[in-house]
This record gives sequence, C-alpha cells and structure tokens, in this order.
Amino acid sequence: MIRVVILGSGNVAQHFIRAFGRASGVDLLKVWARHPQDLSHLLAADKITSSLEELPMADVYIISVLDDAIAGLSAALPFANRLVVHTSGTKSIDEIRGANRSGVFYPLQTFSKTRLVDYSQIPFCLEADSGDIDLLKKLAATVSSNIYEMDSDRRKTLHVAAVFVSNFVNHLYVAAKEIAAQKQIPFDVLKPLIMETAAKVQTLDPRLAQTGPAIRRDQGTVAAHLEYLKDSPYALLYQIITQSIQHEQKL
Amino acid sequence: MIRVVILGSGNVAQHFIRAFGRASGVDLLKVWARHPQDLSHLLAADKITSSLEELPMADVYIISVLDDAIAGLSAALPFANRLVVHTSGTKSIDEIRGANRSGVFYPLQTFSKTRLVDYSQIPFCLEADSGDIDLLKKLAATVSSNIYEMDSDRRKTLHVAAVFVSNFVNHLYVAAKEIAAQKQIPFDVLKPLIMETAAKVQTLDPRLAQTGPAIRRDQGTVAAHLEYLKDSPYALLYQIITQSIQHEQKL
Repeated sequence: MIRVVILGSGNVAQHFIRAFGRASGVDLLKVWARHPQDLSHLLAADKITSSLEELPMADVYIISVLDDAIAGLSAALPFANRLVVHTSGTKSIDEIRGANRSGVFYPLQTFSKTRLVDYSQIPFCLEADSGDIDLLKKLAATVSSNIYEMDSDRRKTLHVAAVFVSNFVNHLYVAAKEIAAQKQIPFDVLKPLIMETAAKVQTLDPRLAQTGPAIRRDQGTVAAHLEYLKDSPYALLYQIITQSIQHEQKL
Repeated sequence: MIRVVILGSGNVAQHFIRAFGRASGVDLLKVWARHPQDLSHLLAADKITSSLEELPMADVYIISVLDDAIAGLSAALPFANRLVVHTSGTKSIDEIRGANRSGVFYPLQTFSKTRLVDYSQIPFCLEADSGDIDLLKKLAATVSSNIYEMDSDRRKTLHVAAVFVSNFVNHLYVAAKEIAAQKQIPFDVLKPLIMETAAKVQTLDPRLAQTGPAIRRDQGTVAAHLEYLKDSPYALLYQIITQSIQHEQKL
C-alpha cells in the first residue's frame, strides 16, 4: 500500500483524489485544503484538513496548487526528509523547498471539474532522485499505463508543446464557434470535423495530414477568407497561421 | 434507386465512390476521371470513363474536382436540364455553369486517401432549388444521418470556421511535434491530450473548456515560454494566439 497525502483542492487535485480513491494499492490518508468545504463533495470530513500540522506520515505528499504557491507551501511543511512532489508542467523540481526529498508527478492532460477522464491513457511525467523514482513509477502505475521519466528541462519543453495542442487548439474552437454563430450555424456542425482532425494524427504524421487552402497555396480562397474576416477579431490569427503553414509545411 | 454519376478522382471523389458503393438505395452508374488509372484500385474498368460523351442518364451528377475546375467542367457537360452538384465548401452554387439544374453536396470533413472515415457522422450541407433539394437529402441520407440545408453564403462562413478547427488545428499539431522533437520527446506523449481536448468540446462550450497560462494571465509562464521559443519559427504563433486568448476570452 502506498500511503498518499494530497495538498490542494483545484482541478488537478480533485482528479487525483478521484483516481487514487478508486485505485488499488493506494491509501489516500488525508487531503490538505485551505478551504475544506471545496472538497466536501468528494471526501468525508475526517479525510480533509486545513492544518499542515495534522498531516500524517505518508510515503508521498503530492502538492497540487497554483504554480506560484508550490514553493511557499512546500517550505511550510512541518516535517523533513519525506518525499514531496508537485504536479506542475512548468516548474522545476527545485520548486520543492524545505528539508524534504523532492520530485515531480505531472499528468499531461487537460482537466475540467465537470468532466471525467480516462486515466489509463494519461501520460505521467515523473522526476525524482534515483532513490525515489521507483516509488513514483509504482504510484503512477496504479492509475495509468503511460509513464515517462522526464527531467525538468524536457518537461518544460513538453509543456510548451502541450500549450499548442491544447490551450491554443481550444482557442481555435472558440474562434470557429463565434465565426459560425454570426450566421446562426450551430457549433454542432463542426464537432465531427474536430474529432476526426484529432483522430487522424493518432496514426498519421500531422504534416501528412494537412489539407486546406493554405497548404494548397490556394491564394484565391485565402484572400476571400481574409476579406470575409476583415472586421473580425480573428483576422490576424487567420493571416499568421496561414503564413506559418506556408512557411513551415513546405512539401 | 438514386442513379449517381461522379466526376473526379481526388480524395473526396474517392471517398464518395467508396461510400456510395456500400450504400443501399444508390446505383453508382459511372465515374468520370481525366486519368482512369487513378481509380482502377476502386472500380472495374467499365465503370470508369474519361469521356463526358459516355456519361449515362442519371438522377445526380456529382462534380468533385478542384474548386477552380468546377465551372469549366460543368460548362462542358454535353446534356441539359439534369441535376449537377459540386462538393466544394467555398464555391457558390452558381459555379455550376451550362444548361443543367445546379446544387451543392458538401461533406464537412477532412479526407485523407489513406484513412477510412465514419460517414454516418459527417455533416452534409446541401443546397438546391426546391424541386431538387429533397432528392439531395435522400441521397445524403443513404450515407449520413447529419444533414443540413445551407445556402452558399452560410456555407462559406462554415468553411472559414472549418479551416480554423481543422487545417489550423492540425498546424498546431505540427508545431507541437517539432517543438517536442527538439528534446527527443515523442509525439506519442501528446496524443491523449490531443484527443481529450477535442472530446471535451463535444459536450462543453470551448470558452468554458479553456485552461492554461494565457487564460490564467500567468505572465511569468507566458514570458518563459516565449523566451524558450525565441529562436523558433513558432514564437510568433505563440505570441499572437496568447494575445487573442487574452483579448477574446475575457472571463
């Protein structure tokens, strides 16, 4: 049994609470939250504490709070020489301060409070000293079969790439929804295309999957689209991404 | 039985040939191709012709060629008063020239020659005079349950939106793959995130689905990412999309 304590009550923390609650081989001893009521829908009251002094002895302490709060919270832990990890994609392992052993336990996924996620497919990117990495691997393996060891430098690169395929892609969904809405076209019409575009690159190199007016250098259609968007806040996006396709995806 | 003739041999034409070949209620009489050998893997030789004179009487003629070739090909048809449709997202119904009745039969999907597609989910956007629209609906219904009547003006808007969620999104996949590859991080690590980002907006408004440093106005992470990308061809994309998220997605 791996004894786990989670510190935090945001999206990622709540997903971990659910996942470890279901996983076998994990004993979720306690969760620390500044406002225990944020977790009352997930946990019995005696499993939640807002006092760091009340945290029990555990094998791993998982800090899942805003990036800029990791250093302060880890420095405030009233114990030493235990394994403390954070879940951030951007912060270095050195962000764990104080007298404990440090690590990173980063799930590469986009979490919403309202949506359940299939954990078994989530890549976990782990970092710790050689004495601790095996325990983190064992812990990740209780919820996922997709485990990578990755140092802070490579994890930062991965996070930049993840911003492109997740936050930026989602923004293009927002743009498309609004462009369509101006002519009363429901977003539903675009949903199968969104799924197929994502599904395609699961097996095809995205360079080979590219289609459309930009890669075809169909300047007539590009010009017509830009003319159509000329009063739209998304005209600049259209222009810059089209240029990028034409510069970076030469066939 | 709806008697169909297809004109063209590209991606979309080949997908139609496959789909109508399997559909019940459709009799695919003949396919016209400038180079019949392009279709020899799909059809028996007597089903293919490179001569417009050899096209038999049919209920619908589907022109699926490059946008700029539609006008010329439709004008060259050696018959009159039959229903001729094109499959373009951008071209007006008026692109069908000559003495025939005109229509549009536009499948909103990204097609690759190497990938099979689940037709039942593809939205078909149809346009024709009132006397012909029911036949097009009946024809689309043989392969899909997702049918929209849409005039040329709205279809153009939809095509612009489709470029955002498909071509532009795919380009962000290309960018992410290359950013990751510079640190030997396999694209596979990003694939579950790509699928979940697309799956999320099937049920959630994309505005509500947004996460990440831009929407959180986490300028520290944004600055770190831009510094990291400073020699990358994708730095400008990062900057412009981040600005667009911060301007257009104010919470």
